[in-house]
Amino acid sequence: MSDTDDRNIYLSTIAPEEAVRRAKNALDRAALIRQETVTAHESCGRVTSQPIFARCSSPTFHSAAMDGIAVRSADTFAAREGSPVTLAKGRDYAPVNTGHPLPEGMDAVVMIEHVEQAGDNSVRIEAPAFPWQHVRRIGEDIVATELLLPQNHALSPYDVGALLAAGIYEVDVWERVRLTFIPTGDEVLDFTARPTPKAGQVIESNSQVFRAIAASWGAQPSFTPPVPDRPEALAAAVANALAGGAHIVVVGAGSSAGSKDFTRATFEGLGRVLAHGISVMPGKPTVLGVSEGEFAGRLLVGAPGYPVSAVVCLEDVLEPVVRWLVRQSPPGRTRIRARLARKTPSRPGLEEIVRLAVGKVGQGYVAAPLARGAGLITSLTKAQAVTRIPAQSEGLEQDAMIEAELLTPLSGLDAVLVHIGSHDNILDLLANELMGLAEPLQLVSSHVGSMGGLTALKNGAALFAGCHLFDPATGDFNFPFLAKHLPGMDLTVLNLAIRHQGLMVAKGNPKGIRGVADLARPDISFINRQRGAGTRILLDHHLSQAGIAPASVRGYEREEYTHMAVAVNVLTLAADCGLGIFAAAKALDLDFVPLALERYDLVLPTAHLSDPRIQTLREVIGREDFQRRMRDLGGYDTPLTGQMMRPGMGLGA
Amino acid sequence: MSDTDDRNIYLSTIAPEEAVRRAKNALDRAALIRQETVTAHESCGRVTSQPIFARCSSPTFHSAAMDGIAVRSADTFAAREGSPVTLAKGRDYAPVNTGHPLPEGMDAVVMIEHVEQAGDNSVRIEAPAFPWQHVRRIGEDIVATELLLPQNHALSPYDVGALLAAGIYEVDVWERVRLTFIPTGDEVLDFTARPTPKAGQVIESNSQVFRAIAASWGAQPSFTPPVPDRPEALAAAVANALAGGAHIVVVGAGSSAGSKDFTRATFEGLGRVLAHGISVMPGKPTVLGVSEGEFAGRLLVGAPGYPVSAVVCLEDVLEPVVRWLVRQSPPGRTRIRARLARKTPSRPGLEEIVRLAVGKVGQGYVAAPLARGAGLITSLTKAQAVTRIPAQSEGLEQDAMIEAELLTPLSGLDAVLVHIGSHDNILDLLANELMGLAEPLQLVSSHVGSMGGLTALKNGAALFAGCHLFDPATGDFNFPFLAKHLPGMDLTVLNLAIRHQGLMVAKGNPKGIRGVADLARPDISFINRQRGAGTRILLDHHLSQAGIAPASVRGYEREEYTHMAVAVNVLTLAADCGLGIFAAAKALDLDFVPLALERYDLVLPTAHLSDPRIQTLREVIGREDFQRRMRDLGGYDTPLTGQMMRPGMGLGA
Repeated sequence: MSDTDDRNIYLSTIAPEEAVRRAKNALDRAALIRQETVTAHESCGRVTSQPIFARCSSPTFHSAAMDGIAVRSADTFAAREGSPVTLAKGRDYAPVNTGHPLPEGMDAVVMIEHVEQAGDNSVRIEAPAFPWQHVRRIGEDIVATELLLPQNHALSPYDVGALLAAGIYEVDVWERVRLTFIPTGDEVLDFTARPTPKAGQVIESNSQVFRAIAASWGAQPSFTPPVPDRPEALAAAVANALAGGAHIVVVGAGSSAGSKDFTRATFEGLGRVLAHGISVMPGKPTVLGVSEGEFAGRLLVGAPGYPVSAVVCLEDVLEPVVRWLVRQSPPGRTRIRARLARKTPSRPGLEEIVRLAVGKVGQGYVAAPLARGAGLITSLTKAQAVTRIPAQSEGLEQDAMIEAELLTPLSGLDAVLVHIGSHDNILDLLANELMGLAEPLQLVSSHVGSMGGLTALKNGAALFAGCHLFDPATGDFNFPFLAKHLPGMDLTVLNLAIRHQGLMVAKGNPKGIRGVADLARPDISFINRQRGAGTRILLDHHLSQAGIAPASVRGYEREEYTHMAVAVNVLTLAADCGLGIFAAAKALDLDFVPLALERYDLVLPTAHLSDPRIQTLREVIGREDFQRRMRDLGGYDTPLTGQMMRPGMGLGA
Repeated sequence: MSDTDDRNIYLSTIAPEEAVRRAKNALDRAALIRQETVTAHESCGRVTSQPIFARCSSPTFHSAAMDGIAVRSADTFAAREGSPVTLAKGRDYAPVNTGHPLPEGMDAVVMIEHVEQAGDNSVRIEAPAFPWQHVRRIGEDIVATELLLPQNHALSPYDVGALLAAGIYEVDVWERVRLTFIPTGDEVLDFTARPTPKAGQVIESNSQVFRAIAASWGAQPSFTPPVPDRPEALAAAVANALAGGAHIVVVGAGSSAGSKDFTRATFEGLGRVLAHGISVMPGKPTVLGVSEGEFAGRLLVGAPGYPVSAVVCLEDVLEPVVRWLVRQSPPGRTRIRARLARKTPSRPGLEEIVRLAVGKVGQGYVAAPLARGAGLITSLTKAQAVTRIPAQSEGLEQDAMIEAELLTPLSGLDAVLVHIGSHDNILDLLANELMGLAEPLQLVSSHVGSMGGLTALKNGAALFAGCHLFDPATGDFNFPFLAKHLPGMDLTVLNLAIRHQGLMVAKGNPKGIRGVADLARPDISFINRQRGAGTRILLDHHLSQAGIAPASVRGYEREEYTHMAVAVNVLTLAADCGLGIFAAAKALDLDFVPLALERYDLVLPTAHLSDPRIQTLREVIGREDFQRRMRDLGGYDTPLTGQMMRPGMGLGA
């Protein structure tokens, strides 16, 4: 048996809009989605399947629109300031409160503020009342028999009020779309068992992302435990979901072209395939089919296994179909213009959806592209927006004005602090602290290393940049690099902490690593940081001092973007050691061979000091309890924390 | 006992923001809102009360990012196009699918598309694989021990995925804010009994608007049956709600200064009043208090009884407090710029919230103010937006560019057809028909009479205007008025129907009304239409022909804005007769004394004929089944329906 010939080959990919069109064409929504009757007071969010006509008028009677007295307007025409008309209770007026019916024959209300008590049973007024003054007339709001709401109308909270006011207690609505999600894969663990995964295992989570998203559409999602990679098991699960009444069955993973990808074949067995492959990344391995036979006319969806791909499949392909089934359109996302923080190349041929951290810098919005892998759910959890790079484009240039589709409310963007620069665990501590403020601030970090942060500052793309660049020539930090790379910019440098850098090694240091010299040993595998990272520059400096060529370090070319990622490589024995901060080693209980102290500073344009958010940031950094929490992490010293740095200070005050 | 001295007098009103500030100051949210633990997969929409740190890394192992073969990159460096490297299964490569762990020692994946089968157990590749190519490395998405989500973070569907992927199965969140709504009023009927109201009675509905709105905030609303207007009953109901665990108790109605308004006094008995009266209309009679004693520190809210006032109290005062209790901000509404269709005066001293019908006319958005009474829930159900007239303003001028806060998705506005003009029941039929299209259109009518519609056309504020103006001099409809009032405009006139106008009288015609001459009888009370309405112009013509002075018609000065409202006055004997269309009389089973036939036309700028929405409208009007439904209403003839009218046509073709 060969490794290639039993695999599915994609049909040519189609645009998501075309996939949606094919699904709509293949489904008969009039047959698929029935009407049902629900109580009016619980109908919010449902969609009317019939026009609704008012049963009662509202109000059903002429009623007082103000607190005061009901009168016959003709009795009051003579009233003038200084020449009052006196009215007798019972005969000429009746006290009324707002909403009360007007007594027979009376046609106006005088507000209580304009009524003067004359005796126990008489009042004086000094102005005439015009007919129907302060009177709510019959049917002013709703007239019986009139159309209250049309068919195919999504019921709002206000509509619920109108329904009840009109005496409507039940409404005919389209039934909710029932979707069943079936996760698949031998390596996938059922999250309900609360597992701890071993190598080769993954905790199933897409079903729950799906469930929460589908619920937000007003649909009725359900899910099954993971189904193993056996065609007959998958076919049985899909058939079972159809028999259970699902209008749509979504199979998670297995939609691609691997030897264990049975989704397409399963759909072919149960009906016919409408599309395989959409021209968007992430999301490409999406399969659409329609069932035939006993439960004919249901939609079958093969969603990709990668979490971001699955989300794109759900949001770009499935949502429009689900909304259409109940005669609605997707509400769409708020779109804003934002400046792209850095060049973002993209492979032509597929549209690419890029996740963005978006915040206000100066007067406009800046969007920093987040990590792009389809497997990174955190690229969505960190994002405030996405943007689309068209299929024919080779990417976006830095500073391009892009259209950002917001995933979060527009009103929240002003509270987003976009940090671009070096990664440090204290930033997480700081992020959490900022969310605890009375007016919370959301710190979003784009980890591009110290040099990347300086570039972002140069382009006006970051509010501030975390930076820890050591200059061997002067023994100073950051300033020599600012002078060289950002000449003429008015920048302020605030120290966040002094931190301990060293070699992270496995617990017990089994390979006996003592220092940089050991990195040249053939039995030592190293895991490096990316180009431009301050930590990599530090490594290069120490290698150079020790006379070791990078090429002789095994693994020098393997790059990670954060200290913690390096630490995890060491923990899992994927590498013997890596250079990083003490806090990362401590978090994963690794041993640590100290190499150097360094200053981790926040660099920002001096103009940003007047930004209230930066003032808040400085206030938080200055707090003693926050600094104590930094020291408690281990590997951080705080003698300079919060202070403005000057050139030549090095590690001293 | 007098009618004035037992009434509450408002404290000076304060801005809603100040009311919110006072509520926040009076509440200790750390004491009021507890933490609770929920399962991660059901946590969407909840707010974290603690930072969440990852328990597992994701992936927990180096894994294949593509379907293909895992290799040692070093083994492939020599591969070139035309000079392939052959690899042996087991020794040099292993087939892998996306997500599978990389076998020990292998560090790259070659995509299946780039693998050529050489023999049963060997493959050829023609390009080198670089190290870590198509490999998802350990912790690429999530690193164990790192901050996954900060405190006070509202959990999204994506976050649910990240939680499970990180091995987090339970999360600490803020408990949901529990609110209890207590409707009050002797005249208020419990909707759960499905009542039919008599005069003086109102179906309670605010509790359900409240419930749907509060649920949309993520809060936990509950409600009680209506409580009668007795202070001790209200006090008991509030105390009971507090004892039941409500963080916030909302009393519906009774918050004003009427003799049965006990909310303020009740709050004073249970705690202290923080504010009475907010400087916004609708919404002014809002009371805020805080409880003392056994259940101290809970918020007490007196919401006004009018539905729109209640909504303003909930959305402008209560929502910010509820969100703040769970450390959030209201998401806010999307704001757009729109041109105001007509002058909108406003009383200085209070901010006024005006409901708006908003749709696209030409290139921009036009906003037509809807009816302004605080008692009109339909002014909210019809609205796409609201705007605020500041307290110090005397109103907005026609054509003013206003900021509209959208109540519906921006994406839906293009499908809104703004009709400004005369009212007719066929417009409801048409509205319902348009919602049944594959691409539904939403018809929103602002009823200002035929002349008002022409003014709107003149100002470019309406897509089209319903118009039925009879010119006695020529015997023609509409064109003489267009020539006089809109000279030089290129307009198209489409007939919608010929309709029957007449006197609507009570069933059996008890007063024996035979024609216009009877309107001068002193025993006959009339209900009129508003100035500018075509029906009023028709009445004036017939009165003039009969030689009857308007002043001699009892009720000539009483105005309603629609046929149906006139019909309801007749049905409830509030008037003996009114002029209107047959369809309105038939709907309410009234008798009808025919007076005249008239042409009801749609007038529109000829340029709008190219608007695809107008093309759809014409297509629908032209359908035979739609015309049949019009005729089935009764009182409509359709020989001209859908045709373009020419001057001088009158009622003939």
